[in-house]
Amino acid sequence: MNFASDNVTGAHPAILDAMLAANDGAQPGYGNDPLTERVEARLREIFEHDDARMFLVATGTAANSLALSVLTPTHGSVLCHWTSHVYEDECGAPEFFTGGARLIPVDGPDGKLDTADLATKAAHGKGDVHMLQPSAATLTQVSELGTVYALDEIAAVAEVCRGHGLKLHMDGARFANALAALDCSPAEMTWKAGVDVLSFGATKNGALGCEAVIVFDPALAELLAFRRKRSGHLFSKMRILSAQMQGYLENDLWRANARHANAMAQRLHTGLGGIAGIEFPYPTEANMLFPKMADGMAAALQARGFKFYDNRWDAGVCRLVTAFNTREEDVDAFVDAARDVASSIDLGA
Amino acid sequence: MNFASDNVTGAHPAILDAMLAANDGAQPGYGNDPLTERVEARLREIFEHDDARMFLVATGTAANSLALSVLTPTHGSVLCHWTSHVYEDECGAPEFFTGGARLIPVDGPDGKLDTADLATKAAHGKGDVHMLQPSAATLTQVSELGTVYALDEIAAVAEVCRGHGLKLHMDGARFANALAALDCSPAEMTWKAGVDVLSFGATKNGALGCEAVIVFDPALAELLAFRRKRSGHLFSKMRILSAQMQGYLENDLWRANARHANAMAQRLHTGLGGIAGIEFPYPTEANMLFPKMADGMAAALQARGFKFYDNRWDAGVCRLVTAFNTREEDVDAFVDAARDVASSIDLGA
Amino acid sequence: MNFASDNVTGAHPAILDAMLAANDGAQPGYGNDPLTERVEARLREIFEHDDARMFLVATGTAANSLALSVLTPTHGSVLCHWTSHVYEDECGAPEFFTGGARLIPVDGPDGKLDTADLATKAAHGKGDVHMLQPSAATLTQVSELGTVYALDEIAAVAEVCRGHGLKLHMDGARFANALAALDCSPAEMTWKAGVDVLSFGATKNGALGCEAVIVFDPALAELLAFRRKRSGHLFSKMRILSAQMQGYLENDLWRANARHANAMAQRLHTGLGGIAGIEFPYPTEANMLFPKMADGMAAALQARGFKFYDNRWDAGVCRLVTAFNTREEDVDAFVDAARDVASSIDLGA
Amino acid sequence: MNFASDNVTGAHPAILDAMLAANDGAQPGYGNDPLTERVEARLREIFEHDDARMFLVATGTAANSLALSVLTPTHGSVLCHWTSHVYEDECGAPEFFTGGARLIPVDGPDGKLDTADLATKAAHGKGDVHMLQPSAATLTQVSELGTVYALDEIAAVAEVCRGHGLKLHMDGARFANALAALDCSPAEMTWKAGVDVLSFGATKNGALGCEAVIVFDPALAELLAFRRKRSGHLFSKMRILSAQMQGYLENDLWRANARHANAMAQRLHTGLGGIAGIEFPYPTEANMLFPKMADGMAAALQARGFKFYDNRWDAGVCRLVTAFNTREEDVDAFVDAARDVASSIDLGA
Repeated sequence: MNFASDNVTGAHPAILDAMLAANDGAQPGYGNDPLTERVEARLREIFEHDDARMFLVATGTAANSLALSVLTPTHGSVLCHWTSHVYEDECGAPEFFTGGARLIPVDGPDGKLDTADLATKAAHGKGDVHMLQPSAATLTQVSELGTVYALDEIAAVAEVCRGHGLKLHMDGARFANALAALDCSPAEMTWKAGVDVLSFGATKNGALGCEAVIVFDPALAELLAFRRKRSGHLFSKMRILSAQMQGYLENDLWRANARHANAMAQRLHTGLGGIAGIEFPYPTEANMLFPKMADGMAAALQARGFKFYDNRWDAGVCRLVTAFNTREEDVDAFVDAARDVASSIDLGA
Repeated sequence: MNFASDNVTGAHPAILDAMLAANDGAQPGYGNDPLTERVEARLREIFEHDDARMFLVATGTAANSLALSVLTPTHGSVLCHWTSHVYEDECGAPEFFTGGARLIPVDGPDGKLDTADLATKAAHGKGDVHMLQPSAATLTQVSELGTVYALDEIAAVAEVCRGHGLKLHMDGARFANALAALDCSPAEMTWKAGVDVLSFGATKNGALGCEAVIVFDPALAELLAFRRKRSGHLFSKMRILSAQMQGYLENDLWRANARHANAMAQRLHTGLGGIAGIEFPYPTEANMLFPKMADGMAAALQARGFKFYDNRWDAGVCRLVTAFNTREEDVDAFVDAARDVASSIDLGA
Repeated sequence: MNFASDNVTGAHPAILDAMLAANDGAQPGYGNDPLTERVEARLREIFEHDDARMFLVATGTAANSLALSVLTPTHGSVLCHWTSHVYEDECGAPEFFTGGARLIPVDGPDGKLDTADLATKAAHGKGDVHMLQPSAATLTQVSELGTVYALDEIAAVAEVCRGHGLKLHMDGARFANALAALDCSPAEMTWKAGVDVLSFGATKNGALGCEAVIVFDPALAELLAFRRKRSGHLFSKMRILSAQMQGYLENDLWRANARHANAMAQRLHTGLGGIAGIEFPYPTEANMLFPKMADGMAAALQARGFKFYDNRWDAGVCRLVTAFNTREEDVDAFVDAARDVASSIDLGA
Repeated sequence: MNFASDNVTGAHPAILDAMLAANDGAQPGYGNDPLTERVEARLREIFEHDDARMFLVATGTAANSLALSVLTPTHGSVLCHWTSHVYEDECGAPEFFTGGARLIPVDGPDGKLDTADLATKAAHGKGDVHMLQPSAATLTQVSELGTVYALDEIAAVAEVCRGHGLKLHMDGARFANALAALDCSPAEMTWKAGVDVLSFGATKNGALGCEAVIVFDPALAELLAFRRKRSGHLFSKMRILSAQMQGYLENDLWRANARHANAMAQRLHTGLGGIAGIEFPYPTEANMLFPKMADGMAAALQARGFKFYDNRWDAGVCRLVTAFNTREEDVDAFVDAARDVASSIDLGA
């Protein structure tokens, strides 16, 4: 009954099993082991890209910041949605890793970059020595408001980037959930659409702490390798990361987990959708939903033991997040409780 | 038969068990969970310090760099032994985390800081706006040459630091091994001897990827908390770290593991000590030994499948590292092989 | 006939004279000379503050960035108007000097901080380890839109800062012009109103390259001293700066220069104010004015040899800047030309 | 009678004249003026290099740090003599500008890089992700011990650099003095010998505060331009710098000044050379000399009003620096005083 985030869970059992299986025996450190190599090869297959390089780290903030650090000079700027994790939730890690490049907030409905505003800001100051040079953009797929960029929307963002000489990063902390929503291939959602570097998240979808920075331009790999070490994100016993990623990818666990989480979100949306006093300001496209509840409803539900955030968005807007292990009965319990609460509250004239 | 490092192993089974046990159930993220709190409380008991604060991270480089970053201003310098991990093996992570403070290499026999050289460098440029201001020192316990600072040696370093206004950090990547060697209390080896911040390593002694920065001055805690997040080292599913630390501390596993590794190192030293063509430039005090072998011996042993480094120290000097899971039979096999190799090599006049 | 900026001029003759007078004789380097000491003492008198400390540098960007660098930790943010020089015209120097703190753009009419928006952003994320910590604010006096904060407006900004634990910086690149506009004392416009650190500009008002960072909290002085050296802004032959400041302050040259520039701006405003096709979106309070001209007027005036910028603000808005050496006849010539151009242009129905 | 440094002087009159002459009239800011362009063109002629680019700044620390910042990645290291200004006298400015690259001190007699030690350190850690990557070297011409690299010595350093993929910077704070000593062309002493970027100093040889970063590889120019602005070293009224450089170069003033200073140093050396109790540990090749004086001599001379440093080198070693305006009579007065002091001191058995 905890819908606060998809990071409140432990690991999926299959991922724990992979960690156990990888524990035995001596292995070279720092990723020079066969398992890490196999995992990288597997990701190349999945992304249909022979030259892609993988850099495993343990947190999404590390993945995003390392990725951005190879896409901008220190005198550059990175365009991002104003709701994005890199802008709001990483305590300035992108600034730290980039040596003080600037994040420029971009507008756009439903948590997605507006390409007109993006283009304006991508052109701002270009070539003027007094001004930071727009160098990269980053989009969040699934967005922080639970929406999913369609393939043509990604392509439109990428086109603006190309036109202005910007590199494009995708924060895929919930990559699998977006992929499940679009039902397309990983390649289509990334490099084929114009993404240069991807943060491929696993932590929120069944791993314990594992993200892969995937670079589709091998020229960026050397810098990334040094930056990862220099920021303390190169693990000696890399197996703690590579085993998670192995378990995550095996048998398409990552896709199954995401489909389940998305389905639970739809079930929640459907259940809540018919309740008086609840409306949805954004579409529910992956595993997060943002019901706007009438006064008192959120508090009443929290008082019944349901956990979720309600204080970071517009008045009345709450966030519910489902995960790989969200149970139908918990979803239904929440819906029942919401209906019950709604019926007991005076919803105004 | 891999003596390359104590990071070639997986985790101790009890630590895996702790990770499995901690996996169930929803928990608040980012360390705001009961297990993390319990582990911090346990460390306070172990270190007999009510105000100590613990910051879990996954790598030693992160622990050291975060620790140093709260002990020096950007215009400061950090005095360290020229063999130290922070100077030689972290790709400039201390410079990155401190915003460009300088590491100043200090001399000293057997991998330990010479207090006279330390004092000279601690006084260098003090108060001169043209010069970096000596601000902190760091000592490595166990040192990179396998030696262990005696308690009065730590106190002597600390006294130099106090006299010159320097903070003192201890890189305890092999803290347990040193403690086992000295047979003293954790408090005696740290804050009672003048250490301000400790990198308390677990990875090399049975964990998979877990280190604790322990600060004995709570005034440093707030800055450390922000720096950990800002560098991407705050884990959402903190249980992946706190469970390791729990398993590590429970039933004094950490001490038992270290005693075993140290005993295996002594067994190796004893066995090799009597072999012609092998001598030891430094004493073997913990779980690393540095036999200097006659020409050809190292290569011959490596050809027989034994793994160890031989190319980073003086000519002929090799490094052998034992771990919590090093077996007596592997030690004996190495000694036997060394004896065999020695007998087949012409050791000169 | 160059109204592009107040930095297109050379130095006032009296300032050159001061530089010539200070040229003779050997002097200790790096500001340890009697002239620099006298200038600092004189500024203390002018600002009626016994503990104020002065740090001379040669550029406004250096002054602002050094000032901000002692007011925020690396994980902090600095609130500034979105039109401000630190945000728009310094190529990220504040980010560079602060180690990657973030500038947060604040709204407000006429180039001045809106205290409600300031308060909202000052509270944003406070105490949350995931978010940058609002640490300082900076206001620009004269603002980038030529307006001047009244004393109670400064006090209102300072009150928001105090209430949220923020330090307050004033970018006084045109300090003298603002002072002349308000006809108050330097102390009233700064520390008495709540300003902690001031960039006291001279370059735009008669010097060649000279700005003073003035700190009213002596506890910040040591850090500033090291930061100035570390950023290459400590001059060996400090007389090149201190002599300029001496000449600037002597006989109240700075005030006379500013009064003249402001008067020329008023004369321009008055002259242009009566011309059809010209209106003023902001009041003209110091030495910059922003006439909005009908289509074609700006180009026509530029074609006649008048220099000014017209492409950085809303459509049709131009910027005219007067300086200590702007001549009445040049002002009048511009007004005449504008009237002439206006009469020849079809201003629409 | 001040031999403390060549920065205790004011400017040469001809340089002041150039500043006065450049003061009139409105000019575009930030170096977009004809004078700056002419000065850059003149430097291209002097250095016989059509593509060289000039970046004027006001301090040697700024010049050196900006230069190094375009020659190394943040995970790089810069090899420098352990006596060098960048290592000892810039408060870590190179670390600040490079984003935390490391300066590695190199040995060598007489203040000059030993190529064997240079080569060892240039190879150290190359390609190892755990170690900083040697990326650049810097040599100081005139060295901090007053010696001058011969052309073949520069070439030998450059050859080591080329062989290990390092860029080469020359700190030419006393470039003119070295050139006068070698009697070669500027091109021969720089790019023809393998120098990539030069700090071309004028401040110590007759200017007030003016140094040029000269890059012989135009590909580095764009990054340098942004870095100069971002560090606050781009002057709005650039004429304050370009006029100095103009005056410095005109009529070969810079060469004449340096020849004079060098001649005065030789005169001092010759005069002191015959005095009992004085010896010279290093040759006097430019405008600095380092007499080692018997106990008490330095203090006695300082008591007579002569200013010079005596506390930064080996016991008894003093530094005397001559400048463009050092007078023969002052040199002779010093020699006479030294002879007098020597005769009154018991120089031991």
